[in-house]
Amino acid sequence: MNHQQLYSSLKKQNKTKIVMLVADGLGGIPQAPGGKTELETANTPNLDKLAHDYSCGLTIPVLPGITPGSGPGHLGLFGYDPLEIEIGRGVLESLGIDFNLQPEDIAARANFCSVDEQGNITDRRAGRIPTEKCAELVEKLRSIKIANAEIILEPVQDYRFVLVIRGKNLGADVTTTDPQVTDVPALDAKALNLESQPTADIVNEFVKQAREILKNDHPANMMTFRGFGKKPKIPTMEELYGIKPAAIAVYPMYRGLARLVGMNVLPKPANMQEQIAQLQHEWNNFDFFFMHYKYTDSKGEDGNFAEKVKHIETVDSVIPQILALNPDVFIFTGDHSTPAAMASHSWHPVPTVLTSKYTRPSNVTTFGETSCLTGSLGTIEAKYLLPIALANAGKLEKFGA
Amino acid sequence: MNHQQLYSSLKKQNKTKIVMLVADGLGGIPQAPGGKTELETANTPNLDKLAHDYSCGLTIPVLPGITPGSGPGHLGLFGYDPLEIEIGRGVLESLGIDFNLQPEDIAARANFCSVDEQGNITDRRAGRIPTEKCAELVEKLRSIKIANAEIILEPVQDYRFVLVIRGKNLGADVTTTDPQVTDVPALDAKALNLESQPTADIVNEFVKQAREILKNDHPANMMTFRGFGKKPKIPTMEELYGIKPAAIAVYPMYRGLARLVGMNVLPKPANMQEQIAQLQHEWNNFDFFFMHYKYTDSKGEDGNFAEKVKHIETVDSVIPQILALNPDVFIFTGDHSTPAAMASHSWHPVPTVLTSKYTRPSNVTTFGETSCLTGSLGTIEAKYLLPIALANAGKLEKFGA
Repeated sequence: MNHQQLYSSLKKQNKTKIVMLVADGLGGIPQAPGGKTELETANTPNLDKLAHDYSCGLTIPVLPGITPGSGPGHLGLFGYDPLEIEIGRGVLESLGIDFNLQPEDIAARANFCSVDEQGNITDRRAGRIPTEKCAELVEKLRSIKIANAEIILEPVQDYRFVLVIRGKNLGADVTTTDPQVTDVPALDAKALNLESQPTADIVNEFVKQAREILKNDHPANMMTFRGFGKKPKIPTMEELYGIKPAAIAVYPMYRGLARLVGMNVLPKPANMQEQIAQLQHEWNNFDFFFMHYKYTDSKGEDGNFAEKVKHIETVDSVIPQILALNPDVFIFTGDHSTPAAMASHSWHPVPTVLTSKYTRPSNVTTFGETSCLTGSLGTIEAKYLLPIALANAGKLEKFGA
Repeated sequence: MNHQQLYSSLKKQNKTKIVMLVADGLGGIPQAPGGKTELETANTPNLDKLAHDYSCGLTIPVLPGITPGSGPGHLGLFGYDPLEIEIGRGVLESLGIDFNLQPEDIAARANFCSVDEQGNITDRRAGRIPTEKCAELVEKLRSIKIANAEIILEPVQDYRFVLVIRGKNLGADVTTTDPQVTDVPALDAKALNLESQPTADIVNEFVKQAREILKNDHPANMMTFRGFGKKPKIPTMEELYGIKPAAIAVYPMYRGLARLVGMNVLPKPANMQEQIAQLQHEWNNFDFFFMHYKYTDSKGEDGNFAEKVKHIETVDSVIPQILALNPDVFIFTGDHSTPAAMASHSWHPVPTVLTSKYTRPSNVTTFGETSCLTGSLGTIEAKYLLPIALANAGKLEKFGA
């Protein structure tokens, strides 16, 4: 029995409510050794009080030293082992545009590229055409019809778009058509097993028609595909943990990840105030609420320490409105760290606080990376955070007698 | 090689002695957020001194968020992975009455129930008859004889008793006879494989005879069975770790659990003073002593914060008598937390202190849930506690050269 099976076998439904507020990329590092992090610099009176009275600590998103992308980072927080779920590049790209992928759909990431008269690739990114141009060309390609399969195309950004093949009993084990180098033609799609042969045939037929349609659209007169795959078959959070979860998120990637684990994704809010309003409005309809705040990560990625500090203060300021609803368990955490000093995601454990009437105090006076080292939550893998929340919410039975 | 195999491969016998004193349900939570736990409220001068000079920390009984029963809680402390050992309900019940189950015995938990004239169950617990009545009816049922198997019956409590089938080559994979609802008859026992068919036949023959014997004993005129199983086949602590262990425990459940892992269970003491006397008397005969104190858990289960505090003080007061024997390693811990504020077992990590001349100090001034967060033992899964004790006792060889 693995850990998740154990937790699942002990699930118990009740009326308690859990709110998990994720400030993307929350964790940070000091600008110089020995200094303060973004969170430690920010004025966060609400979080400081929670950290003192309740259970703060650090979550390791995947494993020590592992810098996670958004997928593994969130899967851990949702109570999944991020090592056990593989999300293909095509699926991730379709999640990122909030595309409602069906179980049998095959998604691939597509790149417009440039080819010369011999058909050899001269630019693998088609001169990085703007997104508007991408959308225009994708619209042209939508005229392509293929027998026995529906072709769905969606622009993403710059030269990137998504190909979705919707058919019956199609395998997804198809090789990339991107040769990874220039001065050679795009590769044919090849099936890696019998069920995937029709899929490869569809891709190659699509390319044949597309080449004709785009012949006068240099620099975007050809395309390559990679990351063919179906949505991973994973049990929903409801199946696993017996909870009825809702996602309240602005950005498509996080809405898509929430959908992947079977959350009810509420209509797209414009900003945090609309997110709070949705939480209030839907309070009686769900027992787990995932709320996502993006800008802590964005500012970290920009390398902007001061702006990340401000966004941490913004998210701190809305916490009283959440607590006013009296959730049985409230969690504030991040999916990973994004230190401004690195301008990228990182492997550092993430400051986390969990409140319930059953937590032990942490006896710290501030909520920060250093104070969390001695909090009562300890330093744990992120995949254990949801089970601990379930325990505090009375949603887990005793194990053994 | 799993962790336990590694530890086992390094076992080394010597004359050092380890004492593990388990205060059942030791850990707690504050009565209100930010307050003190039972242990933090108690006056524990002996434990405070040990925590300062030696290695204190917290043990996670099974996994984060998992509330263990007594079985998994103790198996972890005995150096077993509690996820790898399944103890059926019947076996646990027989352990709980200190019944000496043989390797081939099949145990089931039995409930007296009430049936009407059509044989439909009207009360699954037979009006919760008193234990004396249960014993009287069990005595009547002892007249039942079945070919090829010895039937052993023992009363437990109220309407509950234990059935043990002692035969040869009998399988234990037999379905429950409890329909879980009323207004239907008890189910027939069904075998889930060929070896278990004789067992199912024995159970059904037993029920046929029992129904006749009890026909005038309403409300306890019928019974159901569940949790058929044999004692799990697990290596003894001596086989695994090369130690010669003794159990000094008052309550049958803990004596039974100790017997399950091959401990020498010393004659039943009446109280902690007799436990100390046994420890002194048997000091030269064993090198690992498990001592169990029940009342910290009982008072927690009662929701009685003040009484739990008192019992923690009682157990603190006997520690000097144990230390006077100069054990090479002394451990004080619990099998799980039982916060009075919850009146039940819980998932919270358990305060633990380990002394030996090789520990690092913890630099705390009291022994409590919060101070243990920064002790030199750290926060560890309970299954690692015994290996750490063995290391401190010089009972583990170096790994690799």
